[in-house]
Amino acid sequence: MLGVLLRQPLQALVTEVNRGLVADGFSDLRPAHSAVFSNLGSEGVRISELADRAGMTKQSMGALVSYLERRGYVSVSPDQRDGRAKIVRRTQKGMASHEPARRIITRVQQKWRRLLGPGEMDELERLLRKLNDRLIDEQGSRLSQGEPTRHSHR
Amino acid sequence: MLGVLLRQPLQALVTEVNRGLVADGFSDLRPAHSAVFSNLGSEGVRISELADRAGMTKQSMGALVSYLERRGYVSVSPDQRDGRAKIVRRTQKGMASHEPARRIITRVQQKWRRLLGPGEMDELERLLRKLNDRLIDEQGSRLSQGEPTRHSHR
Repeated sequence: MLGVLLRQPLQALVTEVNRGLVADGFSDLRPAHSAVFSNLGSEGVRISELADRAGMTKQSMGALVSYLERRGYVSVSPDQRDGRAKIVRRTQKGMASHEPARRIITRVQQKWRRLLGPGEMDELERLLRKLNDRLIDEQGSRLSQGEPTRHSHR
Repeated sequence: MLGVLLRQPLQALVTEVNRGLVADGFSDLRPAHSAVFSNLGSEGVRISELADRAGMTKQSMGALVSYLERRGYVSVSPDQRDGRAKIVRRTQKGMASHEPARRIITRVQQKWRRLLGPGEMDELERLLRKLNDRLIDEQGSRLSQGEPTRHSHR
C-alpha cells in the first residue's frame, strides 16, 4: 500500500505537468522524461548518477537521455574527470521547458491544497520533508559505517 | 519540490524492494519493473491501461512487459473482448515474487515508522490516503462532466 500511496499522487502530478508541457509546445516530451529532468539540477549529472537517483538501470536512463538529446533538451559530453563517463546537462531548450513545468507544479500544489485543506496540505508537506531528511541522514550514516550501498548491488 | 518530496521516498522504497528481490533469487528484476507489478492487480490488465496507470508511454510499458514475459513473470494474451488489445497477467513465478516484495514493503514501513515516530507515520499515511481518495473523486467528477481526460492527450 505504501508504494501505491506515494506513486498515485506522483503519477497524477507527472501526468499533469506533461499535459501542460505538451500544450505549451513541448509536444515531444513524455511523462517518463520527468525521471531525467527531476533528477537533473542546474549542474551536469552523470548518466549513472541519474540512473541511481531515479532507481532505474543505466540502460533505461540512457535511452531516455538519448531521446532528449536527439530532441535538443539535453547535451551529453564526456566527463572531464573521467573520459568514460558521460555528463548530462540541460540545453537552453531544456531550460526553457523548466519554467512552464514549475508553473504547472505550483498549480497542482494549489489544487491539492484545495482538495486537502491548507492545514492538512502543509502537514503533508512537512511530514514528507521530514521523511526525506531522515532517509538522507540514515543513508549517510549507513555509508559512513561502511555498509553496502545500493551502488554495490548494481 | 512537490514531485521530489514524493519521488525520493518512493525511489528509496522501490530500490529496497528490488534489492530484497534480487537477494531472494529474483536477480533479473529491476527497479523499473515495479511500474508493472504495482499497477497489476490479481486480475489481468491491458498494456494501455498499465501505461496510463504508470504515466508511461505504451511503448515503454510494452518494453518492460516484454522483458518480464521473456523471463516468465507475466503472460501476455489477446483480450477476449478486443482482439487487438493485450492482457497482462502475473504467472506463478510472478506471483511467487509478490510475497517477498510485500514482506520487504512491510519492513520499509516499519523503518519509516521508526524514523518519523509512530504518530507521524500514521498521520502521513492518513494524509496520503486522503489525497489519493480526493484525486480519484476529482478525476471521476471531471470524467462525468465530459472534460478531456488524459487519454485524449495521447
